Amino acid sequence: MKLATFEVTTDVGRRRRLGVVDGSSLLDVTAGYARVLETEGVRQPTARAKCLAPANLLEFLRMGEDAFEAAQAVYDARFPDETVRAPDGARIVYEENEDTIRLLSPLTRPTSIRDFSVFEDHAADHEKPDVWYELPVYYKGNPDSIVHPDTDVTWPVWEDSLDFELEVAAVIGTPGENIDAADANEHVAGFTIFNDFSARDAQFEEMEMPFGPAKGKDFANGFGPYFVTADAFDADGATVRTRVNSEEWMTGSLAEMHHSWGDMIEHASRGEILQPGDVFGCGTIPGGCCMDLDRWIEAGDTIELEVEGIGTLTHRVVESE
Amino acid sequence: MKLATFEVTTDVGRRRRLGVVDGSSLLDVTAGYARVLETEGVRQPTARAKCLAPANLLEFLRMGEDAFEAAQAVYDARFPDETVRAPDGARIVYEENEDTIRLLSPLTRPTSIRDFSVFEDHAADHEKPDVWYELPVYYKGNPDSIVHPDTDVTWPVWEDSLDFELEVAAVIGTPGENIDAADANEHVAGFTIFNDFSARDAQFEEMEMPFGPAKGKDFANGFGPYFVTADAFDADGATVRTRVNSEEWMTGSLAEMHHSWGDMIEHASRGEILQPGDVFGCGTIPGGCCMDLDRWIEAGDTIELEVEGIGTLTHRVVESE
Repeated sequence: MKLATFEVTTDVGRRRRLGVVDGSSLLDVTAGYARVLETEGVRQPTARAKCLAPANLLEFLRMGEDAFEAAQAVYDARFPDETVRAPDGARIVYEENEDTIRLLSPLTRPTSIRDFSVFEDHAADHEKPDVWYELPVYYKGNPDSIVHPDTDVTWPVWEDSLDFELEVAAVIGTPGENIDAADANEHVAGFTIFNDFSARDAQFEEMEMPFGPAKGKDFANGFGPYFVTADAFDADGATVRTRVNSEEWMTGSLAEMHHSWGDMIEHASRGEILQPGDVFGCGTIPGGCCMDLDRWIEAGDTIELEVEGIGTLTHRVVESE
Repeated sequence: MKLATFEVTTDVGRRRRLGVVDGSSLLDVTAGYARVLETEGVRQPTARAKCLAPANLLEFLRMGEDAFEAAQAVYDARFPDETVRAPDGARIVYEENEDTIRLLSPLTRPTSIRDFSVFEDHAADHEKPDVWYELPVYYKGNPDSIVHPDTDVTWPVWEDSLDFELEVAAVIGTPGENIDAADANEHVAGFTIFNDFSARDAQFEEMEMPFGPAKGKDFANGFGPYFVTADAFDADGATVRTRVNSEEWMTGSLAEMHHSWGDMIEHASRGEILQPGDVFGCGTIPGGCCMDLDRWIEAGDTIELEVEGIGTLTHRVVESE
């Protein structure tokens, strides 16, 4: 199943909704489920749908299995067009290219971002310490610097070497602590694309102190455009691509992880409770950034990150005003 | 002004409230302000108090000046005892030592934790790189691992060298980006004590990779017991102490910061929007941890961190069950 968080511009303001993706259509999960329940003759369909199939992906993940079953029921209902309405008159079927619709980051504010580096051929110019081979080491990103899909990213005025990074991000659905790698799949709700924009000069300056990246990473984190449930995504083998101004710069795959998703979750959850909405980035897939290619972007460039089974996450980099 | 987040056990469940501290009394800010407004003859005093003086410190900080003025009005009202009630019957005056009361971390879930290291004599055995002197470098902590005051901390089963760290934490009240050090005070709402529990073996193992601490820090972050507004705290000179099992292990002060609070805020806010509830830890005040003293705690020990003008933050370390 593929989900998307989207914003609808209405006469009563902008409203954020969660949609099941059906081709080029978005089916409003909460409104659609209210309609499903109404059709079944259940009492209080609108109230139940708001509770069981919330319009906010974080709340949706917290609800767990019932929410995913509701979304599946909306998909299976085959609502024909926008004339079908929820009991309160809410629209169910949208087309993604309508003017009043805008896709957002699936999680508009992740609970946390843990970013790993599990591909040996990324940053190959920097020698990896022994611990890299033994543990899936990570740093924590800034969940308050989210950049939505198709939104401009401002080139930091203090940085010369702006970079992007093609990563895939797992999103925790079921909370847990001390999770075994073998059981980790049960805790992952799904995946999205992560563009971990990086200011290389700032990053390598601050990393002379062993506190990890902060200013080099925390100004912009792009996520989206879709959230794909774990059962529908090849998290260990999907093909990936980058394009800059429509020119392909790299093609690769998720196949060469030195530490698995399960290893990352086992390590991070040791003595810590993972929460719904926690995001795990796998690190740059080799060649998926300027640094790996020694080929650099400029202001005005459009960056596309494509991941098979998810879609394409696009951002344009612009000069600051 | 000194504020505290506290939990009240009631017949309708545990409720979290915000109190103004007045000696050994806690004055419920929201209930007290409703009473103040009622006395003034204002319409809808309860609704206004909930909006302007919320019972959650994060919401309170977001409201800004109006919230602090409301809390001051509650303090100034000199409510005599618990017989004085809000319009809806809510109690205003509590005593901190009552059985139904428990102090919590002022922010029960900070928006973020940025932890700096601005004292040259901390971790003096580890050579500081040049960048330490030039920039207030920081890593980000885990805001989901909060330990409330007077709550046991479990010794991680995988760690031999458990440590505590005495730090003072500034809390952002007014959001902002690209803040000059000279204007940083306007963005700091207040301060609390921060015990940055540390698993030294895990920390130094993972820090061989320059991604900073994560597993070494993220299992427990103690905050509290009070939140003191910036005007009422000597953030550049307060005396501090640690005690283990009532024995003084260290006395020191905030006077020797290599980077100021303003420097930290200027650096972190460059190209990033700081948010209400963002927490800035200053790093260990020299001698304020086992590592600096090469004197180590054991399971069963009680650790007290005292900061002049704030209070004493106490935790006991216990074996895991």
